[in-house]
Amino acid sequence: MARQERAIRTRRAVLEAAAKVFADCGYAAATVADILKVAGTTKGGLYFHFDSKEALARGIIEAQVEQPLPPQDLKIQEWVDQGMLLAYQLPRDPVVHAGAVLSSDPRGREHYGSAWPDLVQRSVRTLSEAKERGEVLGHIVPQQTGELLASAFHGVQLFSQLETGLQDVEHRISALYQHMMPTIATPAVLTRLDLSADRGARLNAQLREAAEEQATAAARAAEETAPVAG
Amino acid sequence: MARQERAIRTRRAVLEAAAKVFADCGYAAATVADILKVAGTTKGGLYFHFDSKEALARGIIEAQVEQPLPPQDLKIQEWVDQGMLLAYQLPRDPVVHAGAVLSSDPRGREHYGSAWPDLVQRSVRTLSEAKERGEVLGHIVPQQTGELLASAFHGVQLFSQLETGLQDVEHRISALYQHMMPTIATPAVLTRLDLSADRGARLNAQLREAAEEQATAAARAAEETAPVAG
Repeated sequence: MARQERAIRTRRAVLEAAAKVFADCGYAAATVADILKVAGTTKGGLYFHFDSKEALARGIIEAQVEQPLPPQDLKIQEWVDQGMLLAYQLPRDPVVHAGAVLSSDPRGREHYGSAWPDLVQRSVRTLSEAKERGEVLGHIVPQQTGELLASAFHGVQLFSQLETGLQDVEHRISALYQHMMPTIATPAVLTRLDLSADRGARLNAQLREAAEEQATAAARAAEETAPVAG
Repeated sequence: MARQERAIRTRRAVLEAAAKVFADCGYAAATVADILKVAGTTKGGLYFHFDSKEALARGIIEAQVEQPLPPQDLKIQEWVDQGMLLAYQLPRDPVVHAGAVLSSDPRGREHYGSAWPDLVQRSVRTLSEAKERGEVLGHIVPQQTGELLASAFHGVQLFSQLETGLQDVEHRISALYQHMMPTIATPAVLTRLDLSADRGARLNAQLREAAEEQATAAARAAEETAPVAG
């Protein structure tokens, strides 16, 4: 268990170092040696997780896509939450930020791919489920609306990056949903939706709390079995 | 008159050449000498209009902003038309396309500026006028909605560029307006709005026709005054 936890921490440290180096030098100019220096890990530790610069970029992109979300009564709230959590993390989590930058670089994408296809697929899947449950208006085509939201999100994020260095991205993304949801969700569902700008912060706190509880429970379970093993 | 027309043509040829060279080599690597070769004009002809590479970039950006639009009964239709015409021109007009690319380059913007502030300002002004006329719902704040539309437009354009090389940009932009206008325009106005994907093509044809009529009228006026002058 301790060894697995250490491996998770090393992997995260390497991804954070790679995110930092990509942000400072750009992907093309960055080298694995630079990343190794920043990560403060052994060469073996890095190569155990990622065998090339492309693999590091893919790891960063995957971290963005794999983001878990707390389940909600309304599927359409989960659809909104995907964007709200991302908006909260973009200015705060260097790995999430690097994932967004890497994913939208048209030249880099040829080497390491992009988070977009997976993010759009996840968005379309959630929206389809919401539609099956009757939460979404009949004229909505999940593929079209999912792609539209993802692309509009990206533009709003870029605009916020240029205007305020992402300081107001959560307010701008909240405004995006407020402008679109009345055309997407049924009126009865609309009254129950949370589209406020601090939605992402609350989701993030909820996820952290859940992760800490899980860690505490795991530690307690390990303690309880320890005397038998020792 | 003939001299003025020749100057306009030279200016346009130089802008088209600069757009081509920037698209092929990127702004940073492009040189005025490259642009001169493609433009097929004299050095003096180029420098008469643009005295540096930055000035060429600014000229391309201004061409995007100065776009005229046919007046409509509804101001909010004019607001939509700004985006619809741009969506039509992006895959067809190299100068418009180059303007969009230059405007969204965070490094380049420091040298030559961006079309965004002027485009947003124009959008906000039209939206404010539409609101004064009662065409827009009371909760809409023109500055917020104008910025939102501009940034979402940019994201949709980028997505279309990456997915289909802008082949479907007009359909995606039409979908953007269809998702947003019910939250922006009053219901009575909504029924009279044209948000269809071929709106930009029709606007463009209308503008061309008007420009040809104007040119014919000017030529006729010149003919009529010629005998007196000669």
